[in-house]
Amino acid sequence: MPSIFTRIILREIPSHEVYRDAFVVAFLDIAPLARGHVLVVPIEECEFLHQLSDESAAALGQALPRIARAVLAATGTTAYNVLQNNGESAHQAVPHVHFHIIPKYLAPAIGGDGLAIQWNSQPLAVGDAAPLAAAIRERMGV
Amino acid sequence: MPSIFTRIILREIPSHEVYRDAFVVAFLDIAPLARGHVLVVPIEECEFLHQLSDESAAALGQALPRIARAVLAATGTTAYNVLQNNGESAHQAVPHVHFHIIPKYLAPAIGGDGLAIQWNSQPLAVGDAAPLAAAIRERMGV
Repeated sequence: MPSIFTRIILREIPSHEVYRDAFVVAFLDIAPLARGHVLVVPIEECEFLHQLSDESAAALGQALPRIARAVLAATGTTAYNVLQNNGESAHQAVPHVHFHIIPKYLAPAIGGDGLAIQWNSQPLAVGDAAPLAAAIRERMGV
Repeated sequence: MPSIFTRIILREIPSHEVYRDAFVVAFLDIAPLARGHVLVVPIEECEFLHQLSDESAAALGQALPRIARAVLAATGTTAYNVLQNNGESAHQAVPHVHFHIIPKYLAPAIGGDGLAIQWNSQPLAVGDAAPLAAAIRERMGV
């Protein structure tokens, strides 16, 4: 079952496309958090970022700064958030990898206030940090 | 003036490193939003994502899924957010590009609740969408 993003990529559903290459398509979000909110989507059909092939991931990585430059130039903003959610509990709404580029305007807001974040950080747990980092290092390559 | 991340990359400041290649270094955030919160940083010294070279950007893109897989395997989470902030008004705290990989645990939270987001979206402004998309398309390549 193709996702709605695959149908947009195939142009079965119209979108306001801003960029396309062999691996990546980008278009305006239809429910923007701010004017110029763009979705950057791999053509490869993956639900989660960690499933993405190296080839698609590299192409996505390369596309992000290029598209960000165009969004900034077109909207006049200088600040923005890039967000990619994996899993319903992490606010993923469409089961196809997508990066949000969300402009942040200084007041007054144009078409929305951008991404609202709360940053409830804690100090790194001292005794846990070294074994946790070792556990992640050991799993590189999985 | 090198950023604190450059000093971490050069190992002038210690960190709990989890990954390193020719372009990218990743280490535990010292003020995590959840256990396993990792920062993925290009060795290239850039303040903002849109300043990053194609080469660094592609390497970063490729590293993200690989590191995410290792974080998930080491922590047992399946959900996570990937976030990259540009500009003080968009919550950027260190002036050197960095992607956050932030695990989202189901209850009970371990070492923090992860990224808290509010999603105050609006419908795409109908009359503005086509010219806005055209303006972004025209600026691809800037």
